[in-house]
Amino acid sequence: MGSDIGKKLSETASVDQLSTQPFPASRKIHVEGSRSDIQVAMREIELTPTTLQNGETEENPPVRVYDTSGPYTDPNVNIDVRKGLTPLRQKWIEERSDSALLDGFTSQYATVRDQNITLDHLRFEYKRQPRKAIAGKNVTQLHYARQGIITPEMEYIAIRENLALSEAQMDKALETQHPGMSFGASIPKMITPEFVRDEVARGRAVIPCNINHPESEPMIIGRNFRTKVNSNIGNSALTSSIEEEVEKLVWSTRWGGDTVMDLSTGKNIHETREWIIRNSPVPIGTVPIYQALEKCDGVAENLTWELFRDTLIEQAEQGVDYFTIHAGVLLRYVPMTAKRVTGIVSRGGSIMAKWCLAHHKENFLYTHFEEICEIMKAYDVTFSLGDGLRPGSVADANDEAQFSELRTLGELAKIAWKHDVQVFIEGPGHVPMHMIKENMEEQLKHCDEAPFYTLGPLTTDIAPGYDHFTSGIGAALIGWYGCAMLCYVTPKEHLGLPNKDDVQQGLIMYKIAAHAADLAKGHPGAQVHDDAMSKARFEFRWEDQFNLAIDPYTARAYHDETLPKDSAKVAHFCSMCGPKFCSMKISQEVRDYANEKEQAEQGMSEMSEKFKETGSEIYHEV
Amino acid sequence: MGSDIGKKLSETASVDQLSTQPFPASRKIHVEGSRSDIQVAMREIELTPTTLQNGETEENPPVRVYDTSGPYTDPNVNIDVRKGLTPLRQKWIEERSDSALLDGFTSQYATVRDQNITLDHLRFEYKRQPRKAIAGKNVTQLHYARQGIITPEMEYIAIRENLALSEAQMDKALETQHPGMSFGASIPKMITPEFVRDEVARGRAVIPCNINHPESEPMIIGRNFRTKVNSNIGNSALTSSIEEEVEKLVWSTRWGGDTVMDLSTGKNIHETREWIIRNSPVPIGTVPIYQALEKCDGVAENLTWELFRDTLIEQAEQGVDYFTIHAGVLLRYVPMTAKRVTGIVSRGGSIMAKWCLAHHKENFLYTHFEEICEIMKAYDVTFSLGDGLRPGSVADANDEAQFSELRTLGELAKIAWKHDVQVFIEGPGHVPMHMIKENMEEQLKHCDEAPFYTLGPLTTDIAPGYDHFTSGIGAALIGWYGCAMLCYVTPKEHLGLPNKDDVQQGLIMYKIAAHAADLAKGHPGAQVHDDAMSKARFEFRWEDQFNLAIDPYTARAYHDETLPKDSAKVAHFCSMCGPKFCSMKISQEVRDYANEKEQAEQGMSEMSEKFKETGSEIYHEV
Repeated sequence: MGSDIGKKLSETASVDQLSTQPFPASRKIHVEGSRSDIQVAMREIELTPTTLQNGETEENPPVRVYDTSGPYTDPNVNIDVRKGLTPLRQKWIEERSDSALLDGFTSQYATVRDQNITLDHLRFEYKRQPRKAIAGKNVTQLHYARQGIITPEMEYIAIRENLALSEAQMDKALETQHPGMSFGASIPKMITPEFVRDEVARGRAVIPCNINHPESEPMIIGRNFRTKVNSNIGNSALTSSIEEEVEKLVWSTRWGGDTVMDLSTGKNIHETREWIIRNSPVPIGTVPIYQALEKCDGVAENLTWELFRDTLIEQAEQGVDYFTIHAGVLLRYVPMTAKRVTGIVSRGGSIMAKWCLAHHKENFLYTHFEEICEIMKAYDVTFSLGDGLRPGSVADANDEAQFSELRTLGELAKIAWKHDVQVFIEGPGHVPMHMIKENMEEQLKHCDEAPFYTLGPLTTDIAPGYDHFTSGIGAALIGWYGCAMLCYVTPKEHLGLPNKDDVQQGLIMYKIAAHAADLAKGHPGAQVHDDAMSKARFEFRWEDQFNLAIDPYTARAYHDETLPKDSAKVAHFCSMCGPKFCSMKISQEVRDYANEKEQAEQGMSEMSEKFKETGSEIYHEV
Repeated sequence: MGSDIGKKLSETASVDQLSTQPFPASRKIHVEGSRSDIQVAMREIELTPTTLQNGETEENPPVRVYDTSGPYTDPNVNIDVRKGLTPLRQKWIEERSDSALLDGFTSQYATVRDQNITLDHLRFEYKRQPRKAIAGKNVTQLHYARQGIITPEMEYIAIRENLALSEAQMDKALETQHPGMSFGASIPKMITPEFVRDEVARGRAVIPCNINHPESEPMIIGRNFRTKVNSNIGNSALTSSIEEEVEKLVWSTRWGGDTVMDLSTGKNIHETREWIIRNSPVPIGTVPIYQALEKCDGVAENLTWELFRDTLIEQAEQGVDYFTIHAGVLLRYVPMTAKRVTGIVSRGGSIMAKWCLAHHKENFLYTHFEEICEIMKAYDVTFSLGDGLRPGSVADANDEAQFSELRTLGELAKIAWKHDVQVFIEGPGHVPMHMIKENMEEQLKHCDEAPFYTLGPLTTDIAPGYDHFTSGIGAALIGWYGCAMLCYVTPKEHLGLPNKDDVQQGLIMYKIAAHAADLAKGHPGAQVHDDAMSKARFEFRWEDQFNLAIDPYTARAYHDETLPKDSAKVAHFCSMCGPKFCSMKISQEVRDYANEKEQAEQGMSEMSEKFKETGSEIYHEV
């Protein structure tokens, strides 16, 4: 698209730039809920049968996996990036009759931007008309949950989290799975819509779903659900374009991003965001202060509440599902960072710190917090309360600044709840392993179990270029301890902006961390995927091993590097040991022997029984 | 070398095939011990000065790092791969007067192999004459330690572990470091030679150093020392050559391999091993049953104690520093694996299981264990008691088979100690996070604190192609809990043989895991490296960040992808945020403000004092 200078983006943009291939041996299935328009998408991986010793075959049931890729991997859906995705939640939103379409954008900035004809070539043409709660109404999922209403979103999530397994299938799956160690989380065997509602009502889980983003597939963030992963995309002043950002979004959902944050700080943020949201099957988060700062040309002192407020409305009406708000960076906490090794490393945190110092006033996000709540509930935007004072080095971990802010975030969560506004809490950064648990415990205590959402944490500072490794360790740990969503870190952290390969590497590390955490927490059914892989491995079903892999392409390519021939895909050996020397093969012989032995012993035992039955007469003829 | 067909390897082999460049901004230093021939090698990374606000500069002291690369990264050493490394321990071994040179190999196989002229072209020409304990003598470091003798090896290790920091330097380093949480390990602030001796005497640490491998730089494995990392190399029936294996060895030590296991199962194992040992600055481990099996053409049933014994002696006289011996795979444990999802996955384990079943006899490694001890103590080969029944899937973790074998390994460790033979214990495989700690606790309990050495563990089965990730998480955890050495896993695990890039990726993941574990355990001084990196990061000293990175080349390349110009290396911003929008920059402003504030408050306070001093008269003129 970048080369079609002068042409409109909406004319040149096409599906060709997007990664839309289904995964190998995978098909998109849709499980219907209590009504026909609840169609929960998941991926099913077909497996080949097992060849038994006697030459007969035994079917292996397909494995269902949680699927974040939306319609992009569905060959039956015609993707048109210019029109965006089908608004699957639109009817549900309309049915509630508590919101109405607006004539145009309420935001002054959005209005001016829309009237600027020099931007026409960048514009997403099939714009949605913004929607807002009717005066006096609250359109948040938390509000519904507290009224006892199970929304279609909640039912969708229950089916999605269970992967629509029946109780009998779940019982079978749990036969090989070890009970987890869950540090206070309590995940039921079957997730019901009522359980989803109850967790949301308690504030222990959130469903980020702005009424202006009806294209998104409902998902939940909470520690009694599957651990989620966020990926960050976004342009900066120095690099990248709208086209690249949309592809990064699609690429992120392909590799398992449960939500995507658009952290753009460069040009045309408003237009870029429109393209991203209209094409996103996952919730989109932003840090509105970034765009607000762009509007003041990068001068933090010039930020005002009015400017920020207009930015919130602008983004809420586009459909952003959650906002990072750094309202816990209080003036009195700022000097606590002065003696740190790395001061303040969060961008949002440093912007607010600078503003506070320049004006010697309290953070306007804090002083206007209830007004922000009013905006949030008119669109159902979820708070992601930002950790502006997170540590940027292991030396600064868990210090006074970090934990003071965390306690303030806990107070703010209670205010959000008072307004029936959904809220989760951001955390970590750089934290050595032995200090991670304290973060989770402090967060649960001070934030009354509001979901925790952490960057990493990075467990050491010494490995730029490999911070997906350093932080993947910490992410797995904090996920196990109860963190609900893990914000990924790519190999480029501290060094540059991630490209597509970096996004993939970061997401794969984090999907592994999240899955390892689910196994450790004892998430019911999580081990189905592992068991299917291990059975395929033991039975030398190579194709199934590739197809079940978190990255089927790389698994196959690595195997083929040593043994490229098709015959090797059915060979009962691999390149590690060669044909004669295979532990898996020998192991099967052991199993055969044990079977024979058992049968022999059973035979002996039967003989012995008969011997007894016949009066224990030796030499009795039969 | 591979293309010089018909030529002798010893004529064509050269330093050109090896990776010998020093790391950027690094120099090899040698710290002298109590005698002039104790010259402990370490790497020192030079840093640039900090430019202060007033324009003046402040020096940053160089950072010392533990260095496993031996003379290969020392430009002052002339490497000749045909002659091997300088035998730095030779004099120490000779001085002890408890061993003597042999006329030739005691092993029958080695003798026959040496006389085979068709192998001349593969032969390492500058062979060492083998050495053995004088009859009745025991040459193990454990034997010396128990007699109260501090060997030069022990002193070398004490200096190496401390990185020769003075107590004052260590105190300063500990100012920013958080106290660790060590699960029973107790690491002193300063490692002394006497502490090393005591830990070895108690069996809590081992120094793998065969008297026939005098080229190796002494190192220690124990949970009160730095966490170590092993890398595996070795050819198989299907791939790779001697030249490649020697380069993989050098490459492994370059990227932090503390020991290297030669797991060759292909051709010319004997000759390959000679090249590897003669050129290795780190201890070499093997699994002798692999070669023994090759000698019976891959038929496990044909293995005999006599054949195995000859193999042990063959390898001990070449200089192998530790042997993996699967003596805990008892006949009665084998059927315990029959109902597993993945049976027996350890190669050594499955070989022994097959042998036991075929003969319906107890494992000959178990029945001949005391005879093996006799061999071990004649050369100081350390036992690595193999976990032949380790789980190959998370479903099989911590089961009866695994823990039964572990208890037997504990019994065998006591027998080894009775002979003053050094011993450590192998463990894990596939274990979900919440079950890792139990492994460490069981091991400490049943093996009386003998050092633990684990593969991974892999915390999920679903990610072939990324098992350095899945296992890096588990490795960091078990290292923190007290595992002394982590056996790396490469991206090719389960798929194929690792190439050089895989070896590097595996080692970097594991060095990160080991370092994260050291920070979490509170290893004194471990955080020096992190703090230096974080200070460089905060001060935008880009060159220093690259040079301090665990992989300086990748860190620089990633940075340069977005900002290739030299000017960007001194720029006070990076590509993530651009020039105006930098949290680090803003953070410095906060620090300046806090300083001013403090000075102002101090000024106020001084004024106030003066005011009181002057009798609190208002409008007093000064």
